[in-house]
Amino acid sequence: MNHNLSVQELSNGILADNRVILSKAITLAESTLESHHEIISQVLENIADKTGKSLRIGITGVPGVGKSTLIESLGLFLIKQGKKVAVLAVDPTSSVSKGSILGDKTRMEELAKEKNAFIRPTPAGEKLGGVAKSTFETIALCEAAGFDIILIETVGVGQSETLVYEMTDIFLLMQLPNSGDELQGIKRGIMERADLIFINKVEEDNQNFAKQMKIDLTTAIQFLPKKENNWKTKILQGSALENKGITKLWETIEQYFLFVNENNSFQQKRENQLLFHCENYLKDIFFQQLHSIPTYKNQQEKILEKVKNNKIIPYFQINQLVKRFF
Amino acid sequence: MNHNLSVQELSNGILADNRVILSKAITLAESTLESHHEIISQVLENIADKTGKSLRIGITGVPGVGKSTLIESLGLFLIKQGKKVAVLAVDPTSSVSKGSILGDKTRMEELAKEKNAFIRPTPAGEKLGGVAKSTFETIALCEAAGFDIILIETVGVGQSETLVYEMTDIFLLMQLPNSGDELQGIKRGIMERADLIFINKVEEDNQNFAKQMKIDLTTAIQFLPKKENNWKTKILQGSALENKGITKLWETIEQYFLFVNENNSFQQKRENQLLFHCENYLKDIFFQQLHSIPTYKNQQEKILEKVKNNKIIPYFQINQLVKRFF
Repeated sequence: MNHNLSVQELSNGILADNRVILSKAITLAESTLESHHEIISQVLENIADKTGKSLRIGITGVPGVGKSTLIESLGLFLIKQGKKVAVLAVDPTSSVSKGSILGDKTRMEELAKEKNAFIRPTPAGEKLGGVAKSTFETIALCEAAGFDIILIETVGVGQSETLVYEMTDIFLLMQLPNSGDELQGIKRGIMERADLIFINKVEEDNQNFAKQMKIDLTTAIQFLPKKENNWKTKILQGSALENKGITKLWETIEQYFLFVNENNSFQQKRENQLLFHCENYLKDIFFQQLHSIPTYKNQQEKILEKVKNNKIIPYFQINQLVKRFF
Repeated sequence: MNHNLSVQELSNGILADNRVILSKAITLAESTLESHHEIISQVLENIADKTGKSLRIGITGVPGVGKSTLIESLGLFLIKQGKKVAVLAVDPTSSVSKGSILGDKTRMEELAKEKNAFIRPTPAGEKLGGVAKSTFETIALCEAAGFDIILIETVGVGQSETLVYEMTDIFLLMQLPNSGDELQGIKRGIMERADLIFINKVEEDNQNFAKQMKIDLTTAIQFLPKKENNWKTKILQGSALENKGITKLWETIEQYFLFVNENNSFQQKRENQLLFHCENYLKDIFFQQLHSIPTYKNQQEKILEKVKNNKIIPYFQINQLVKRFF
């Protein structure tokens, strides 16, 4: 394939759901080259009115909770209903610690075979700011290619859960039925952010554990702040492996979307997310540029050294440093 | 009093615990004038080696939970033990919604009479970045004046709880014994951040409610992420008004400080807080300056408008905007 597809060729290919071209476009979105930024920005302007139509579903949980299995079950269920499903994985370290989705051939094997499924991991080693940009653009590209449902998985390393939360419409936390050490793996803010909690791996022999877990989770969420959109977190259970609870899960997700559409919080949330990302990206690259200036970097290091040694923040010196750049 | 006290006069006055001079220095720390920044920066350098010796205790909870009453009880208890206690209130909107500490004469009446107590509210209307700077500096000034214990109250409007969390050694969340609508007032992240939860207003007639509350809270905190310093959140109860549970509360606070000193997390946390504040302040004033430039502000507004209309983030345009400033 020619590396120099034109903006028009890329745009047309994406709108025709040409998977080779879609993949190529995503690779451009992931690139750090400015020329690639420019191309993908033009592509996105071309296809802008075809984006935004999907349901964006974030899925998180500790390793071993069964995220891939759930995504496979839910994905196949949705495809049977005539949907087109894209699966993205946001996890900057996955290829190091766990193997990326495509690297691990046993994951989502059935789903990967489906014509109406598209699976794409995040490239390893990318910085979070870059992941945010490329994932946000990948969502738009998949939407333009006609995908109705975007499932975004995160293992929750560092801040990637926050990132996924900030670019999805609904956030699903998976739990195991036994409340033990696994709970310790939960990252900051996750319980608060969950719109749905799915207790997975509920099988014949652990029904009672699951029941207690559900009661405990119900108590726990009472102590968390009320959601801005007034939605009350739902707790479900099932077994992704045995395909149990998937229908109920989907019904609840649909119920959620009905709820947020009715109270107009859906579009508001999307707009807030866009503005939030835009401002974050702006700040990120601003400071990236700033740090590449030796005099700035040097001064900043001196200030931080002073903070460490004297245990006071030299506000006046900071003001002076900032002034130099204006 | 002369408004133009020298840096040396200010420094000496603070170290001698001259309350008039201490108050004057805090006012300078709260000022937005650059000349005041410069003076207070020099004062802080002078007294730097006398700072950092206090225990900094953050106290939060919904309005009506009894924060002032607890601070009065705990403060008087500590003064009886020979401590010097400073009380700061971080709440940018308090004078609007609730009346500032000094405005509301009935609050902390007994404590305010004590020679070894010092009570200082945050001036209303200040921006959070400014509150962070001035509170951080006020802590240092109070420490240099010999205060052993700094109690920092926050009503938890907006982000002020996060701010107080980021500048204290231990974070105390107050709760009411009846788990009802009051819980809804809890802000994001508060449960996760609490090192101690004090169930207040536990009296004769609500012992059973309190008992159930304690059980529920114990369940709830199991689902929260493990603390970096390995401390396990403790749940206590009492009545600040009836002076019940104050001794136990203080013992637990002392137990906490023993724990974090032994595992060396105390100093690490302090250093992290300083660096975090320093970098935040730097970013804040940088963008404040940037926004004051008409061409920047204009371009940024155009970009945000584009985001709203087209639902895509013009990354390339953002890159171009940033480049102009380097």
